[in-house]
Amino acid sequence: MLISGLYTDFYELTMAQGYFASGKWQKQACFDYFFRTQPFHGGYAQFAGLQDLLDYLPEFRFGAPQIDYLQRQGFADSFLNYLEDFQFTGTMMSVQEGETVFPNEPILRVEGNILETQLLETLVLNFLNFETLIATKARRLKWSAGEKTVIDFGLRRAQGLGGIHASRAAILGGVESTSNVFSAMEFDVRPTGTMAHSWVESFDSELEAFRVFARIFPERSVFLVDTYDTLRSGVPNAIVVAKEMESTGHRLQAVRLDSGDLAYLSKQTRMLLDKAGLREVQITVSNQLDEHIIKSLLEQGAPIDVFGVGTSLVTGKEDAALDGVYKLSEFDGQPKLKISENIEKVLLPGKKKTFRYYDSDNSFFADAVLLLEENEINHMVHPLHPLKQLDLRGLKKEELLQPVWKNGAPLISRQSPYVIADFAASRLEQLPPEHKRFEYPHVYKVGISDKLMQLRDRLIKAKANT
Amino acid sequence: MLISGLYTDFYELTMAQGYFASGKWQKQACFDYFFRTQPFHGGYAQFAGLQDLLDYLPEFRFGAPQIDYLQRQGFADSFLNYLEDFQFTGTMMSVQEGETVFPNEPILRVEGNILETQLLETLVLNFLNFETLIATKARRLKWSAGEKTVIDFGLRRAQGLGGIHASRAAILGGVESTSNVFSAMEFDVRPTGTMAHSWVESFDSELEAFRVFARIFPERSVFLVDTYDTLRSGVPNAIVVAKEMESTGHRLQAVRLDSGDLAYLSKQTRMLLDKAGLREVQITVSNQLDEHIIKSLLEQGAPIDVFGVGTSLVTGKEDAALDGVYKLSEFDGQPKLKISENIEKVLLPGKKKTFRYYDSDNSFFADAVLLLEENEINHMVHPLHPLKQLDLRGLKKEELLQPVWKNGAPLISRQSPYVIADFAASRLEQLPPEHKRFEYPHVYKVGISDKLMQLRDRLIKAKANT
Repeated sequence: MLISGLYTDFYELTMAQGYFASGKWQKQACFDYFFRTQPFHGGYAQFAGLQDLLDYLPEFRFGAPQIDYLQRQGFADSFLNYLEDFQFTGTMMSVQEGETVFPNEPILRVEGNILETQLLETLVLNFLNFETLIATKARRLKWSAGEKTVIDFGLRRAQGLGGIHASRAAILGGVESTSNVFSAMEFDVRPTGTMAHSWVESFDSELEAFRVFARIFPERSVFLVDTYDTLRSGVPNAIVVAKEMESTGHRLQAVRLDSGDLAYLSKQTRMLLDKAGLREVQITVSNQLDEHIIKSLLEQGAPIDVFGVGTSLVTGKEDAALDGVYKLSEFDGQPKLKISENIEKVLLPGKKKTFRYYDSDNSFFADAVLLLEENEINHMVHPLHPLKQLDLRGLKKEELLQPVWKNGAPLISRQSPYVIADFAASRLEQLPPEHKRFEYPHVYKVGISDKLMQLRDRLIKAKANT
Repeated sequence: MLISGLYTDFYELTMAQGYFASGKWQKQACFDYFFRTQPFHGGYAQFAGLQDLLDYLPEFRFGAPQIDYLQRQGFADSFLNYLEDFQFTGTMMSVQEGETVFPNEPILRVEGNILETQLLETLVLNFLNFETLIATKARRLKWSAGEKTVIDFGLRRAQGLGGIHASRAAILGGVESTSNVFSAMEFDVRPTGTMAHSWVESFDSELEAFRVFARIFPERSVFLVDTYDTLRSGVPNAIVVAKEMESTGHRLQAVRLDSGDLAYLSKQTRMLLDKAGLREVQITVSNQLDEHIIKSLLEQGAPIDVFGVGTSLVTGKEDAALDGVYKLSEFDGQPKLKISENIEKVLLPGKKKTFRYYDSDNSFFADAVLLLEENEINHMVHPLHPLKQLDLRGLKKEELLQPVWKNGAPLISRQSPYVIADFAASRLEQLPPEHKRFEYPHVYKVGISDKLMQLRDRLIKAKANT
């Protein structure tokens, strides 16, 4: 693939040399990955990017060109000698890819020496932040579309090479197929797509353009009908060719609308197709769609079968990024925390785990963050408002973080993105519906254990007194 | 590098096989790349991505694994035989990278046979849309920062591998250096960065953390001062170590503020540093900055020297994408246009060029799109309001599109991103200031020639009558 150990921020390498030179680099550290704010003002996120992170981990090395480059940047020879043989020797515990996740709970826990765990920060953040953002956006699109199909048309508007993993994350979020052939091959997912306006324009008439296409691709023809005039030219011509296809035992798969008022045009198109006896010909639409427009179109009764989504899907518009962070929680056996000028950014110290509690109907009830040594807690408390407590007695629970990397190798096997997507859909099914609505969703409760709160408060007070 | 001929939309390959099978693939075509809407509600864009596009063009091939994959997707053997030897044999004319550009004017013109020019669509759009977006965002940040320095801290929040070219585009837009070491090596730009909170937390005290860092990096120490308490702990400790550094002939480069009210904290920090005789120690700030916050901070008199910008820079927040398109303008010697349901999306047919006209003070006056055979026009007209005309007589002019690719090789040599950034800055200097303000910028005029308008209108009428 593409990356190297240089796929990181310069300060990680600077600190790594600092740890090395100060003689403390072999001391053990623990970092947590978590995010603070739900993307899209929504009520949940879908975790994604784990498999790619694990796939790239062995690439995170320093070959001769990288060592040479760092030497020219003034890094010390002794440190560079160490980097030549660098590989991550630590462990990773993670929430399963596709899991429904919430702010302020550890999603990934990285343990190892301080040097290696520090160096991985940027890689972890870059992959998990992005794919989680896109999978969550895809899941929202899919939620709006219900039983209808959503496909990824985004590569042309993707953020450069970011399009590669955007298309994978889109599938994880429930999208059916992608126009991005590179990613379709790379991740073994379904490619999709038929014709652009340029195909139609390259013929003397629209009718001929459809006819030739149908002859070459009788099994997978979708006609783009808005090159000249959707209802007076495009759809009538598509009907003519669809009837010709019928006479040779083939079927026009769909027509695609790419401009104009999609509610109006889809209804008119459906009527014309049905009148011609072409009830099985589907209607695909595209053009600046997002989850809100899809919802609105379906509420208006627009008879659309397939939504092709580009920009908003592969870039996670309106959000640009998930605000995930990677924070030191323990060093050399001591719990650590950063005290922020912003109180809501104060961290949770120590090695921790995340429990999910279930209601009697197996729906998600609440998540709790505990110290690693804890196993049973009677209640959890709100991290900022300790008077707010939630009784957890008698509830079924599950530990979300499971081992995924140890001894230089992954502990989980690669799965098809569609398998992860099915898992993701089934998990989201367990989330009560009020957390899934777009407008002011009910906030899912993530609390902490008493012991964790006491540890945090003790460390804050100790710092305040120094 | 990474990509292949599969870095495209599936429909491009489908159409390519269609052109091949229908026997028309060798007919000549011309496509224009242009965008419709200024990013960030601004008054200009800075064109970027050209060099990367040209660098990737030779990678856009189909090796055995790609051919095998396409065969499994049902593509025809005869077409795949052709693809085995595929390379782009056409030509490209382009605006210079770094140029100030505007909506609806051709920025890149691609000519060649219909098959090859069609196949390139997605690659062209993916690279030019993204880098132009980011370079424009960077230019806006730099415009706000004035003489102050802007640096790129974005890799952790970049859209996956999109971060690679985001960091290059950021430099093109006037950013000084990047935290992204991979891109710094790849594009030979300056890497930057020193310490995170985890460095400070890994020591028993903040003072010791600074002291050890200063010992290891006496020439490039920047202390992060907000781990515990910026004004009562961070800055005082930084001052202690800065004085110790002075005594050994070194100088603390800067302190960095990463949370809290940056206007207030930077003023207090400056006061403390100055009182300690550390006037030369700079103040760097970071934390969710964008061009509006930078402008506001400087208007408040915040004594900040360096702005580290992450998310908004590398993702182009609040925009997710530039809406650039790639449209067929001529096929087999005939001018082409798509007639849209949305009147403002109707295209300009025929092979065209872009002229820039200059005012007597050498500032940009207006841009005009002409047919290729035109050289002198007396006036231009508004593309949607033909009564709006602009006299161009006597004005100095320049043709913006120049040859950049021919006979399978680039016609321009690779330049340092800093050289392109200087060119970009000098060009933006020529744009009158009212186009550069953030709020309702004056719209720069882009018109078309009478002949182009007549051709367009004739084609629209001809289509309406069929």
